[in-house]
Amino acid sequence: MRRLLEEEEPESESLIASNSRPAPSSLSNRRGFQMERRNRDLSLDEVEMDNSAPAMVHVDTLGGGYASFNSSGHQDEEDESPNEPIPPLFSKYGDFHTIDWQRDLARDRLRHKLIVGKQAEFPLGAIQSAWDASAGWICVLLVGLAAGATAGIIDISARWMSDLKNGVCADRFWLDREHCCWSANDTVYKDYDCKAWTKWPWMFDFYNQSSAIFGILDFLFYVGWAVAMSTLAVLLVKVFAPYACGSGIPEIKCILSGFVIRGYLGKWTFIIKSVGLILSSASGLSLGKEGPMVHLACCIGNIFSYLFPKYGMNEAKKREILSASAAAGVSVAFGAPIGGVLFSLEEASYYFPLKTMWRSFFCALIAGIILRIVNPFGSDQTSLFHVDYMMKWTFIELVPFAGLGLFGGILGSMFIFSNIRWSRFRKNSKLLGGNPIYEVVIVTLITASISYFNPYLRKSASSMIQQLFDRCGPEDQMDDLCDYQNKTFTNNKVDDNYHTGVFGSRVHSAFWQLILALVFKFIMTIFTFGIKVPCGLFVPSIAMGAIAGRLMGMTMESLFRNIQEQDGHSSYFTCQIGKDCVMPGLYAMVGAAAVLGGVTRMTVSLVVIMFELTGSLEFIVPTMVATMFSKWIGDAICKSGIYEAHIELNGYPFLDNKGEYPYSTVASQVMRPGSARSDDSSVSNSNELYVITQDGMTLGELEVLLRETDFNGFPVVVSRNSMYLVGFASRRDVQMALHTARKTQPYVVTDSMAYFSSNVPDQVAGGPAPLRLRKIIDLAPMTITDQMPMETVIDMFRKLGLRQVLVTRSGKVLGIITKKDILQFMRNNERGIVNPNFKT
Amino acid sequence: MRRLLEEEEPESESLIASNSRPAPSSLSNRRGFQMERRNRDLSLDEVEMDNSAPAMVHVDTLGGGYASFNSSGHQDEEDESPNEPIPPLFSKYGDFHTIDWQRDLARDRLRHKLIVGKQAEFPLGAIQSAWDASAGWICVLLVGLAAGATAGIIDISARWMSDLKNGVCADRFWLDREHCCWSANDTVYKDYDCKAWTKWPWMFDFYNQSSAIFGILDFLFYVGWAVAMSTLAVLLVKVFAPYACGSGIPEIKCILSGFVIRGYLGKWTFIIKSVGLILSSASGLSLGKEGPMVHLACCIGNIFSYLFPKYGMNEAKKREILSASAAAGVSVAFGAPIGGVLFSLEEASYYFPLKTMWRSFFCALIAGIILRIVNPFGSDQTSLFHVDYMMKWTFIELVPFAGLGLFGGILGSMFIFSNIRWSRFRKNSKLLGGNPIYEVVIVTLITASISYFNPYLRKSASSMIQQLFDRCGPEDQMDDLCDYQNKTFTNNKVDDNYHTGVFGSRVHSAFWQLILALVFKFIMTIFTFGIKVPCGLFVPSIAMGAIAGRLMGMTMESLFRNIQEQDGHSSYFTCQIGKDCVMPGLYAMVGAAAVLGGVTRMTVSLVVIMFELTGSLEFIVPTMVATMFSKWIGDAICKSGIYEAHIELNGYPFLDNKGEYPYSTVASQVMRPGSARSDDSSVSNSNELYVITQDGMTLGELEVLLRETDFNGFPVVVSRNSMYLVGFASRRDVQMALHTARKTQPYVVTDSMAYFSSNVPDQVAGGPAPLRLRKIIDLAPMTITDQMPMETVIDMFRKLGLRQVLVTRSGKVLGIITKKDILQFMRNNERGIVNPNFKT
Repeated sequence: MRRLLEEEEPESESLIASNSRPAPSSLSNRRGFQMERRNRDLSLDEVEMDNSAPAMVHVDTLGGGYASFNSSGHQDEEDESPNEPIPPLFSKYGDFHTIDWQRDLARDRLRHKLIVGKQAEFPLGAIQSAWDASAGWICVLLVGLAAGATAGIIDISARWMSDLKNGVCADRFWLDREHCCWSANDTVYKDYDCKAWTKWPWMFDFYNQSSAIFGILDFLFYVGWAVAMSTLAVLLVKVFAPYACGSGIPEIKCILSGFVIRGYLGKWTFIIKSVGLILSSASGLSLGKEGPMVHLACCIGNIFSYLFPKYGMNEAKKREILSASAAAGVSVAFGAPIGGVLFSLEEASYYFPLKTMWRSFFCALIAGIILRIVNPFGSDQTSLFHVDYMMKWTFIELVPFAGLGLFGGILGSMFIFSNIRWSRFRKNSKLLGGNPIYEVVIVTLITASISYFNPYLRKSASSMIQQLFDRCGPEDQMDDLCDYQNKTFTNNKVDDNYHTGVFGSRVHSAFWQLILALVFKFIMTIFTFGIKVPCGLFVPSIAMGAIAGRLMGMTMESLFRNIQEQDGHSSYFTCQIGKDCVMPGLYAMVGAAAVLGGVTRMTVSLVVIMFELTGSLEFIVPTMVATMFSKWIGDAICKSGIYEAHIELNGYPFLDNKGEYPYSTVASQVMRPGSARSDDSSVSNSNELYVITQDGMTLGELEVLLRETDFNGFPVVVSRNSMYLVGFASRRDVQMALHTARKTQPYVVTDSMAYFSSNVPDQVAGGPAPLRLRKIIDLAPMTITDQMPMETVIDMFRKLGLRQVLVTRSGKVLGIITKKDILQFMRNNERGIVNPNFKT
Repeated sequence: MRRLLEEEEPESESLIASNSRPAPSSLSNRRGFQMERRNRDLSLDEVEMDNSAPAMVHVDTLGGGYASFNSSGHQDEEDESPNEPIPPLFSKYGDFHTIDWQRDLARDRLRHKLIVGKQAEFPLGAIQSAWDASAGWICVLLVGLAAGATAGIIDISARWMSDLKNGVCADRFWLDREHCCWSANDTVYKDYDCKAWTKWPWMFDFYNQSSAIFGILDFLFYVGWAVAMSTLAVLLVKVFAPYACGSGIPEIKCILSGFVIRGYLGKWTFIIKSVGLILSSASGLSLGKEGPMVHLACCIGNIFSYLFPKYGMNEAKKREILSASAAAGVSVAFGAPIGGVLFSLEEASYYFPLKTMWRSFFCALIAGIILRIVNPFGSDQTSLFHVDYMMKWTFIELVPFAGLGLFGGILGSMFIFSNIRWSRFRKNSKLLGGNPIYEVVIVTLITASISYFNPYLRKSASSMIQQLFDRCGPEDQMDDLCDYQNKTFTNNKVDDNYHTGVFGSRVHSAFWQLILALVFKFIMTIFTFGIKVPCGLFVPSIAMGAIAGRLMGMTMESLFRNIQEQDGHSSYFTCQIGKDCVMPGLYAMVGAAAVLGGVTRMTVSLVVIMFELTGSLEFIVPTMVATMFSKWIGDAICKSGIYEAHIELNGYPFLDNKGEYPYSTVASQVMRPGSARSDDSSVSNSNELYVITQDGMTLGELEVLLRETDFNGFPVVVSRNSMYLVGFASRRDVQMALHTARKTQPYVVTDSMAYFSSNVPDQVAGGPAPLRLRKIIDLAPMTITDQMPMETVIDMFRKLGLRQVLVTRSGKVLGIITKKDILQFMRNNERGIVNPNFKT
């Protein structure tokens, strides 16, 4: 149990001295179901500064003050000075820390260089080199295979369990309803009349479907199964893997941007999230499998990356695999490999070089192929919601499409607003926050009870979406939505000219059912997204949009028909009498894109995903128009999409790489110690810059500095008077160096002078032996001048993935700006911008 | 004539003092048909350092040492010191200069801030603000409209002129062959028997098609028209717009990466390239319209950006529009909006924020829609080469697909190698370089003479590709490729099971014709790509690949059929007897992707373009497999694609943003003045760092410094002894300041002291009046330390778009690294890496 909660990567764990990370281990003791609470407690100060700074040790002999690489784990470079620390094998970061991209990438280049150097030496060297070159491809291949297989298993299981709410296959219980009916002896598959499928009341010999007892029993079984499944899901999550709840995409975004959350992508999260996802989606809650699928794919990516030290041991390089995994996740969720890559590029990833893009595409495609081979839905189509209408839309229809876009943007913004309010309430309320199981049970009870009575909510979301997207063909006579009067079927299947009639009575009832479904879906999804089971948001959003779109489509159809009847010829709409002018299915598709766009604020990737979902290039323009209007109105109402909003709610240090911020601030106004800022309530005490001088400090003074401050690192300067910059020493390196020196070298005492300069006297006259520490300082820190505009500084942080920069003026160090300062500054500024314009 | 050669943007021209750019004007005098030669002469030294540095003047009062913005063009800030220069309206760069992204973006933010500030002031301010916010969208909308319309006009004209080689529509000469035949009274369109279409010999009353005279006349007309058209094209290019030749994509890449080539995207280039493209593609040369279409779209983007000062006046912002234009260019060239965006992202663009991506998508889509409305090909299909095969490919076919990939990679590399060798020869040869017209005439003569006799080469490349991609349907009985014995047609069109027979005799002759076509196409394209007419490479590459693929497909078909016949049941290949197991059309498609991949080394965008070209999601996997193998083998043979190779050949300063370079060098080894480098033949003389001291120099000394050196700028230091960095003063700013001071202030003499520090004495005792120059220095130059690894430095240059960085150590300036130094370093290093491993 304790073991499970820790869920660390064991092979990497051993690389760090266990006594050197007090903060993470104390955190992991607390780690339980209070994850959300911890996230609340986790202020930015904790994130950037605690005692577990990265274990990076830099030697300047290897070029550039960057970390040395030690392929065997032993110390094999020449030990000129005995009292220097051992550079570690690979960098490690503490939990909830930000990685240093440049440094990690430099470390990888160094590693690469060593391997290339060995290339000619042995046959072994050549093999190692080839292995190293192909490692990335092999890794994403494995990830793709595993992600596809996982998605297939989850889809099949969820389908089976979802049908379990209604009944069971009598003779072969492992079959879901459709396969059960197919495998029965019926020659033609009939959805509404299948002998092999046994409803639960039949088990108790209630065959009279119209009796009240039958209805009640059926209802109770339905609700009972739903509650049982969701309760099991929440229990699994609570007990075994608290990180397995939710969608996971906000956290994936943070992780890909360089944040470290230990165990978030671990194997226990993976296992529990898989099982929990099957249960929660089968329970009929208003949630989707797509977000969690991305999380699962990233777990797979993380797990497989440990097979390849190149990726597993290097946080920056690992994120290349994770980006590809995220693409694979979307690919299997929607059957959309191109959309997956674009999603990874647009939404998820931060550092996305083109090499990664191609590899992500490969990964996404492999995953998609595997899923198609598994073929969980038993269909022959490449796309999930295949549409086959051959009709063209007319330009005038762009008006209702834009209307749908506006609706989607407003609905999405309302959803974000309500959901965030509710999530905040959940976090702050003791009742809800402490009792996630009750919450899940209540939500499931309500959802199941109401869904049971609505034919559209009762069926699985994806089959509802398929139904709404479909056009009415001759085979859909049983479908309420397709109940047209005066049908005139022709024999040819691809002819659109088969009904001229007006709506039948069943269409009207379907219309009201759909309105109810939309309202209920909207309300329940607000409360569902955020409960402690694995739950995604894509499918509920698409479902809401599809309902709204279909309603709009039916209205338009009726409108056009009326105009036609009055007009007589109606050449105006380029649509002849007797022709089916409006496709309500297309409106459903466009509505789905609009609402999904309003909720997530995706753009290009959304259009591409919708297009791959439906397999129809023809309708890319309507989708795009709706997405555009949806994004415009959405951004006007509230700036951030649901994922960004959740990131902000949880206080993750995510430096958004999209927005542009016109500030009129320069670096000197943001750096710490600040000159004289009015709003620095958070930066508080430190009005002095703590520095290390390159040759004037004793070991004791250094130890005092470490004890009294909690900064992540210290600038090293020539002298305290001149303040000319020499380099940067990270807290952890200094700590380790002093620790090692104290332990291994008895002649090093508190009064020993610590030398960070290159020319160290052999013996200080009358003093104890000096300590050589030049190797631990980074001689190439990023520096800026105090007059650098903040936009440029933010740009540097974003594009280069920095952790901190040193601010100088005429060569003198004035202060330091960390990622935390940047985030704080941006938040203050946002508030500052929002207040005068909107509130007063 | 002189006017045309200059082809500058007149509204921007006036912003620069005419006497301050000696280099560009002397260059433009020489600008004629020797463009290629000039590019050769244009060494990197010229590119980075000449007398026309950007006219950026920085004032530190506006925050951050960045340029001030002056909305009215007049000097409207308080003039505290009379002898300071006027900050210009917008930045301008000299011809063949590199822009400074950070500075331009900062300038735009400043401009934006001013507009936002005015927002509340007037109704006018609000309008201005709204206009500013929507300017980007309006601009790309216009670009999309114009690009689509242009592409439509070019397509229609080229088609008409291409048919003109064969004959003319007797009664309505403005119709091309197909429309001519459609408009005739024939009830059914018959390609081979159309009365209305008049062949040229018929004009001279030679109706006997079998006579020798008819053949000769027909041939002569065919060749004559081809030569006439291509000659007209080359004459137009030579006389009016030398930049209009070639594909344009290498230059677009450079321009998008921040290089300035004046007039390359001007209106004359646009007009001449449009007309020339129609002529050259109609002449039947082995070239495509796609690359030039991208160039044309970028011209449109550039021209329209001048309507919006936000973009037209800011080189960095303008590139956002150009990126979108490039996407629109690909979109109209292939009918592939998504592929266009990905092409722009992957191939063309450098700085591509997500906001730009969404806008590019919009632009590409608009252009695509317009082209569809124009509908130049008169087809109803969304995709250019629509395929309608419903069959599935089998997994075992991935082996021949991979084989096609290998073939494509090898063919592509051979093509690149040969074409670059020939282009280099052309550049260095006096005969060829000086006589582009003869070259074009000879190439056209050969191409036309041979093409006339090959049915596949004679028809337009795109209809040949369509034919090769197509499956053989019942309607293709006349097609040699579809001449199967024992055809058994069924009535249903979508049934694949309609022929079981083996090849007929005509297929065999078609096979040999195709082989000849492939060989000839390969050879001629090598000589064609680079002649002085607008010519692209996509369609010839696709054509070569399609031929090779179709050949492979026909071979495989025959092979499978033999196996079937021997095997009897052949369940092994999951392909039953009597079924059509192999689609030669699919092989053609895959081959096209393979060769195009081998030539251009595109990856994701290529797969997406191919898929949009053919409209078939089903075949994305085969395409991807082929592209992958093609890229792998291609990269193994020669690293760079055709565009990069041409960029290198022309010596453009293009800092590739793809490769990763594991160097073990630090900044101090690359900077100038270098410590002691062995290979710096080019950097030569300067072993001293020329600096400006902040308060110790007289006006005369500054003038000497400017006269004696040709650097782009100078670090400003505290004193020559300490060398502590204060800021950076660009050459042009100093020059302008001194010039203005000399002209306007009579009391400023040669002995006047120039003060770059903030505390200037009112009057130097006994000396002349001091000159205040603090405002012209950039107080926020990018600095790095001397130990910074070169990979990180390159990363900074790439991602932040720098022009130079200053190298410091302990606060002292040691040297400077410019983009030119980076490129020189990379080139040296590449040679260094290549030599030991591959050559010795």
